[in-house]
Amino acid sequence: MKPLRLGIAGLGHVGCGLIELVEKQDKLRLPGPVEVTGVSARSRGRNRNADISSYRWFDDAATLAGDDDIDVFVELVGGSDGPAKFAVETALKAGKPVVTANKALIALHGAALADLASENNVDLLFEAAVAGGVPVVRALRDSLSAVEVSRVSGILNGTCNFLTTEMLKTGRSYEEVLAEAQKLGYAEADPTLDVSGMDAAHKAAILSAIAFSADLDFSKVAVEGVEGVELLDLTFADRLGYRIKLIAEGVLTEDGVVCRVAPKALPHEHPLARVNGSLNTVRVEGEPLGAVVLTGPGAGAGPTASAVMGDIAKLFTPSARPAFGRADHHSGRPFTTEINDERSAYFLRVRLEDRSGALAELTEALAAEGVSVDKLMQDSADENGAAPIAIVTHVCSNAEINAARKRLSGLSSPIDAPLLIRIEAAA
Amino acid sequence: MKPLRLGIAGLGHVGCGLIELVEKQDKLRLPGPVEVTGVSARSRGRNRNADISSYRWFDDAATLAGDDDIDVFVELVGGSDGPAKFAVETALKAGKPVVTANKALIALHGAALADLASENNVDLLFEAAVAGGVPVVRALRDSLSAVEVSRVSGILNGTCNFLTTEMLKTGRSYEEVLAEAQKLGYAEADPTLDVSGMDAAHKAAILSAIAFSADLDFSKVAVEGVEGVELLDLTFADRLGYRIKLIAEGVLTEDGVVCRVAPKALPHEHPLARVNGSLNTVRVEGEPLGAVVLTGPGAGAGPTASAVMGDIAKLFTPSARPAFGRADHHSGRPFTTEINDERSAYFLRVRLEDRSGALAELTEALAAEGVSVDKLMQDSADENGAAPIAIVTHVCSNAEINAARKRLSGLSSPIDAPLLIRIEAAA
Repeated sequence: MKPLRLGIAGLGHVGCGLIELVEKQDKLRLPGPVEVTGVSARSRGRNRNADISSYRWFDDAATLAGDDDIDVFVELVGGSDGPAKFAVETALKAGKPVVTANKALIALHGAALADLASENNVDLLFEAAVAGGVPVVRALRDSLSAVEVSRVSGILNGTCNFLTTEMLKTGRSYEEVLAEAQKLGYAEADPTLDVSGMDAAHKAAILSAIAFSADLDFSKVAVEGVEGVELLDLTFADRLGYRIKLIAEGVLTEDGVVCRVAPKALPHEHPLARVNGSLNTVRVEGEPLGAVVLTGPGAGAGPTASAVMGDIAKLFTPSARPAFGRADHHSGRPFTTEINDERSAYFLRVRLEDRSGALAELTEALAAEGVSVDKLMQDSADENGAAPIAIVTHVCSNAEINAARKRLSGLSSPIDAPLLIRIEAAA
Repeated sequence: MKPLRLGIAGLGHVGCGLIELVEKQDKLRLPGPVEVTGVSARSRGRNRNADISSYRWFDDAATLAGDDDIDVFVELVGGSDGPAKFAVETALKAGKPVVTANKALIALHGAALADLASENNVDLLFEAAVAGGVPVVRALRDSLSAVEVSRVSGILNGTCNFLTTEMLKTGRSYEEVLAEAQKLGYAEADPTLDVSGMDAAHKAAILSAIAFSADLDFSKVAVEGVEGVELLDLTFADRLGYRIKLIAEGVLTEDGVVCRVAPKALPHEHPLARVNGSLNTVRVEGEPLGAVVLTGPGAGAGPTASAVMGDIAKLFTPSARPAFGRADHHSGRPFTTEINDERSAYFLRVRLEDRSGALAELTEALAAEGVSVDKLMQDSADENGAAPIAIVTHVCSNAEINAARKRLSGLSSPIDAPLLIRIEAAA
C-alpha cells in the first residue's frame, strides 16, 4: 500500500505528539503506512520534542496545504480565522482531505467548510476538536446514525471541571485553584476561553450540528462560564445533594436545536456528577438506543494526537476494511492463557466449622505460601455451625495464590468450596 | 443515491426492530436510502411486530444470502454454527458485505470469516455483537487505531450485572433474583450462556482480537461465571470496600493476549464499580491515550437494531462523507435560543443582609412568580453581615423563573448578584 503523505501545519504539543505516532506506527493498528512530507509552524528553529529536520519546511501553512506532494492536510495551527482557515480552505479547494483539531474554526465556520469539502468531494475530519481522545464525533456521526437523538450533553471543558472538583474537594477558593491549575498546566495563562464556557460552547455546537443534522449557527449558542461559581455554592449544593458542573448541551425542540453551556446542579447519583478532575464526558440520548456515555481525557498532546491519527487512518483508499481491523502488515499476536508475572490482591470467602483453631489453620495455610492478610472479617456461625469469613489479601503472585488455593482444599474444616477472586486495582 | 437493498435473516426482536428503523429512516441520519428486499426466518406465519408481507420471503437464509437482488446480508439468526454460519459464508463468497449481531459466530469463527471477507474484498461488520448499543467495536477498530492498547476490560453481560447489583441492593439470594430477572425478561429461560460467563467471553474475545491485532482463538479464553457468587460474598465485599462484578478483560502480555472472564472485586471508587443494573461498559487503556470508558445498554431490540443499522450505514458506496454527516436528503434544523416550554428546578444562592424580614422578602418574591421552595439552607452571616442562603426550587417554567429573576434584582437586601442555575433531572 502506498504511504499516505501528511502535511502538518502547527508543531506545538499536539503536532509533535502526532509526529511521535508517525514514527512508532509499526506498533499501531493503522490500515496502511503514513509519512510526514512537509511541516509548517510559526518558527522553524524552536526547540521541539520532535526532530523535523528530515521534513520539507514551509514558511506558510497555505502553501503546504496546496502542495502536490501531500495527500492529507493536518491543521493544528489553531484560531478560528486567519492562517488556519485560509490553509484549510486552500487544501479543500485543492481536493485534499483535511484533519483538524481546531474547535473554534469548526464551530464558527464549519458549515461553510463542510460545503467546500462536499463540493470537492473530500473529507473534513475533526474528531480531535471535541473531547480530545474520546471518540465521540465519529460515534455520533456514523455508528449512532440510526439513533434519533433527543439530547446530547456533557462535560466538555477539563479546566472548568478541574476547578469545580478541586474547589469542593480542598475547600479552596476559585482564585487559589485556578492559580494551581495554571501551575500544573491544566489552565492557560489566559484562562478566559475555558472559564467563560466558550471552549465548551464550541464543542457543544459541533456535537449538536452532527446529532440533529442542524445548520450550525454559533451565534445562537448561549454561553455561561464558571467565573460566578464560588466555593460557597459548591458546598451548599453538595449539602443539598448536588454537584455543580459546567454542562454543555444540545436539545432538540420543536423550534429547533437549543445549544447552551452553563453551570448546572447534578443530583449526586447522576452519572455525570461523578466525572471528576480534567475528564471529559458526553452523553447521547435518543430512540431506540436509550443513552450511551463516553468518558476520557479531553485534552493533552497524547490523547489529541491519537484522535488526529484516528482520523488520518480513515483516509486510506476506501476498500473493505479487515473485519478485526487487522491488516497484513500487523503482526498477529497469539491468544494465551495466563499472565505469568501477574500480581494481584485477592478477595477470599470461606465457611469454616465454628471451632477453635479453624481460623488459625486457614491463615497459616495462606501464610505458608506467602499470601498475607490485609483485612479479615468473620461473622457469627449460621444454624449449620458454619462461620463465614472474608479475607482481603495483600498483593501476591499467581504462583503464590495457586499454591495457597491448593492448601485451602486440604484444610480440615472448610464447609464448602471457597470463593477466591481477584481484586481490581484502582483505576 | 440508489437504495441499499437488505436481505434480513432472522426476524426476532432485533430483526423486527431493524425493520422499524428502515421504515422510519427519514427521521434518521443515514448517508442514503435503505430498503428491505428479502427476509427469512424459521416460520413465516408467526405473529410479529413488523409487517413483512411486502418483502420477498425465503425459506432458507443461505438462499437469501446469495440472492442477486440484495446488496447487504444481515444475519440475525444466531448460533455459532449451522444455518447462520453457512449463510454468512455464502454471502461473503458471493461478494456481499455482511452485518451480524452474532457474537458466538464471530468469537468462534471470526478469524476464518474475516479471511473470507478479505479474499472477497467485502466488509464483515459486527458492532451489535459486542455491548449492544454501545459503539465500541468501531471505536476500537477505527477511531482508536492509533492507540497502543494495553488492556481492554468491562462489564459485558447485563444479566450477570443485574444479578449482582440486585442481590446486594435487595438482600435477596442468587436464585430469587435470577427468577425475577427471568420474569422481567432480563434473563433467558435457560440462563446458562449468560451466568456461566460464556456470553461475556464471546464479546471479550472479539474486543481482544481487535485491540491487540491478535489471532482470535476462543479456546484460550478462561471463563468463570457468577453462579458461585453468593449474597454473603457481595455483602462481605461491600463492607470491606468492594463491589463484586463479572469482569471481562483482555490484557497484552509478553507471551500474547490473555483474555478471561471472572468475578472480580472492584474498589468502591473504581469507575466500573458504579455501573449498575443491566448496563454494559467497556474501558480501553493504552498509550498515548490514557483510558476511555464507554457505557450504555448492552442488549435489547432497540439498541441492538440501532447498532446493526449503524453498520449498514457504513456500506454506502464509499466517497467523502459530509463533515457533519448531513446528507442532502436530511432536513436541516435551525439552531435556536430558548426552549419555550422548558420546565426545571433551580438552585439559587443569594447573600442577604443579616436582618429580620430579609428572608421573608426573598421567599415572597419567588412565591409571587409561582416559584416555590423545595429545600432551603441558611448559614450564619459572615464578617460583612452577609447571610448566605441556598434554595432548591420546585420545578417551574422559564417564564416563572425569568420573572422571579427580575424580582430578585429588585430586592432591598441582596449583597451581591445571586447565582441561579438549573438542576439536571435524574438520569
